[in-house]
Amino acid sequence: MAVGSAHFPEMPVIDGIKLGVAQAGIKKPSHDDLVVIELDEGTRVAGVFTQNAFCAAPVHVAKRHLADDAPRWLVINTGNANAGTGDQGLRDARACCEALAEAAGGVVGNVLPFSTGVIGEPLPVERIKAALPAALDALGNNHWAAAGRGILTTDTRPKGATRTLEINGETVHINGIAKGSGMICPNMATMLAFVGTNASIDHDTLQSLLSDTTTRSFNRITVDSDTSTNDACMLMATQRTQMLDAEGLTRFKDALQAVMTELAQAIIRDGEGATKFITIDVEEAANEGEALAVAFSIAHSPLVKTALYASDANWGRFLMAVGKAPVADLDVDKVVLELNGVRLAEHGGRAAGYSEEAGSQAVAEQEITVRVALGRGAHAERVWTSDLSHDYVSINADYRS
Amino acid sequence: MAVGSAHFPEMPVIDGIKLGVAQAGIKKPSHDDLVVIELDEGTRVAGVFTQNAFCAAPVHVAKRHLADDAPRWLVINTGNANAGTGDQGLRDARACCEALAEAAGGVVGNVLPFSTGVIGEPLPVERIKAALPAALDALGNNHWAAAGRGILTTDTRPKGATRTLEINGETVHINGIAKGSGMICPNMATMLAFVGTNASIDHDTLQSLLSDTTTRSFNRITVDSDTSTNDACMLMATQRTQMLDAEGLTRFKDALQAVMTELAQAIIRDGEGATKFITIDVEEAANEGEALAVAFSIAHSPLVKTALYASDANWGRFLMAVGKAPVADLDVDKVVLELNGVRLAEHGGRAAGYSEEAGSQAVAEQEITVRVALGRGAHAERVWTSDLSHDYVSINADYRS
Repeated sequence: MAVGSAHFPEMPVIDGIKLGVAQAGIKKPSHDDLVVIELDEGTRVAGVFTQNAFCAAPVHVAKRHLADDAPRWLVINTGNANAGTGDQGLRDARACCEALAEAAGGVVGNVLPFSTGVIGEPLPVERIKAALPAALDALGNNHWAAAGRGILTTDTRPKGATRTLEINGETVHINGIAKGSGMICPNMATMLAFVGTNASIDHDTLQSLLSDTTTRSFNRITVDSDTSTNDACMLMATQRTQMLDAEGLTRFKDALQAVMTELAQAIIRDGEGATKFITIDVEEAANEGEALAVAFSIAHSPLVKTALYASDANWGRFLMAVGKAPVADLDVDKVVLELNGVRLAEHGGRAAGYSEEAGSQAVAEQEITVRVALGRGAHAERVWTSDLSHDYVSINADYRS
Repeated sequence: MAVGSAHFPEMPVIDGIKLGVAQAGIKKPSHDDLVVIELDEGTRVAGVFTQNAFCAAPVHVAKRHLADDAPRWLVINTGNANAGTGDQGLRDARACCEALAEAAGGVVGNVLPFSTGVIGEPLPVERIKAALPAALDALGNNHWAAAGRGILTTDTRPKGATRTLEINGETVHINGIAKGSGMICPNMATMLAFVGTNASIDHDTLQSLLSDTTTRSFNRITVDSDTSTNDACMLMATQRTQMLDAEGLTRFKDALQAVMTELAQAIIRDGEGATKFITIDVEEAANEGEALAVAFSIAHSPLVKTALYASDANWGRFLMAVGKAPVADLDVDKVVLELNGVRLAEHGGRAAGYSEEAGSQAVAEQEITVRVALGRGAHAERVWTSDLSHDYVSINADYRS
């Protein structure tokens, strides 16, 4: 299941970025499971990675190679996460980098590795090595859609977003692809997103643009409250324009935020077993911390998520989820709850004038905005989540991730 | 579904406590849904209540009446939680107390009200009032089992625990009953438990005994991470023995802890949709906080819970859950993971000598002990949880709680 349109946008060429896809047979035969991204020399790359302490071997290696600041290739495999694999996992990730560097004419530190799939199985290095030449042969600057398909695991659809804008007379493109469906509660990034642009931006600015836009996109979504071991989001800028000035950077950041948010939302729309796309707006909070605490308390609640799955306007469960959040001295009389504009609760109970009919109609929609006003201040935060369905249980009781 | 034996123990009479059950027809006809507990004068009562900010009207009223320190009656209805009901809910809870006080010959402050069931519906006060005389007529000192059945909602079985010990030549009894199956992640208490004893214990000691034993029983369980609006646990001591001395109190506390833990475990065994009973032992933590953070991170993880439902020894998901817990500078190389004594992971990956056969055999059991050693210190904590099954989704997509 998935919610909303499965449309994958037309993506423009980004000068200096080529993508190639191959079949390594890592988990299934005849399945695109290996993607190589080649970056022209001089491309600057910023990254954010999972905060899970058990972060995967490729995350360790990618962080180290990224610090060398000369990335030329990204190699991404699906079907195996190379996580929970100890020292052998680190050696395997480096072996893939070495093989790619040798085949492509670089050094091992030029390669950033990424893996997604089952945790705890040894990475099939030989199969990946054997498929690398095919991926290099396939490199082309118009293969964003193929790469978007090549990085999927339990996803049911590829996820892409793109924006084009004119800055100081030059055309700036931003293309992004992402994968992710379960084990989604990113903390710094999500598993996996790759965003490219032809813009010229210095490295520190690029990193802070990525961190800022991640905060309000991938760090604001949850499918199941579980933070993956492999999350990573990379921003690659090929420096083909004039260096962006302050005004250009502001406009670039808005466009980047739009791409990042669209990708994050696409992950929720394709959340494991999702039948609903839920936006949670917490308003009138005293600060960011309590707004997010309430929003995620609702977004993580199995009882809220099963009620949404059942299209049940069960406002009692929403109040329960608000009330269990760690917010000191919450005055429940001031809390207001609305679903798609229908006021369900206020003054600690059912709203005056609320009818079950109106509530049922609101919650029957595939896309639902939950608005909670706390009556404590002026801070607002927004997060996105999906519902909890039978299919979520089936997928995760059957699939070994 | 439920895990383990449904045995309800034989319970001794506790002098000074009588229980009566009646049918008020609150939600279903011909169903025991109203329980009155009568306490002899001089009984001391301690209570712990939910920390949910949206706590129910009866919780507010019971706390206030308990502060008056002259409780003589408890009135418990199922089928309606009287939560999210605003000022009308408070008036309704008080009206039930008034009716019972009038019928039984006391004052309103002598009555503690408790409700459990659907949130957000007005309490059917008239039906409860109409059934009170029948509950009073039914009062008897050997009706613990009937009361245990009378407080159930989505539970599939009554839950009771009892201990008897000799202290200074006198026989001391402790009887407890509890209900709860979903919306279970108590914070200070669970919905609902009533424990009675004939022991003589002063009020402050009684309260601290209750708080201490709650911490290591009801505050160590989770079905779905959702904290109810109505949780309450009451300890009633009828003062029929000599005042317990220090040694007697120590032995009493051990027995009380056993009763409380058995009741808490019974709630997990009957957790909504439960097919497994899971004990999570986190050892070698630096302190209580990080031990509990890791234990609840595992216990709340939908991916761990669906793997357990599928009897899949998916140790990668356990490591993911350990790694996402907020523990600073966790050295994953030192983490050890065992299921029912089978070592699955160590040194950041699969344990040497681990076989899928041994893991599959361990996780196929109905009762599973997960042991995680963090290698950081000497602190240990234990929590209990259930798995996440299709039935959990069915129950909560169908039942309006």
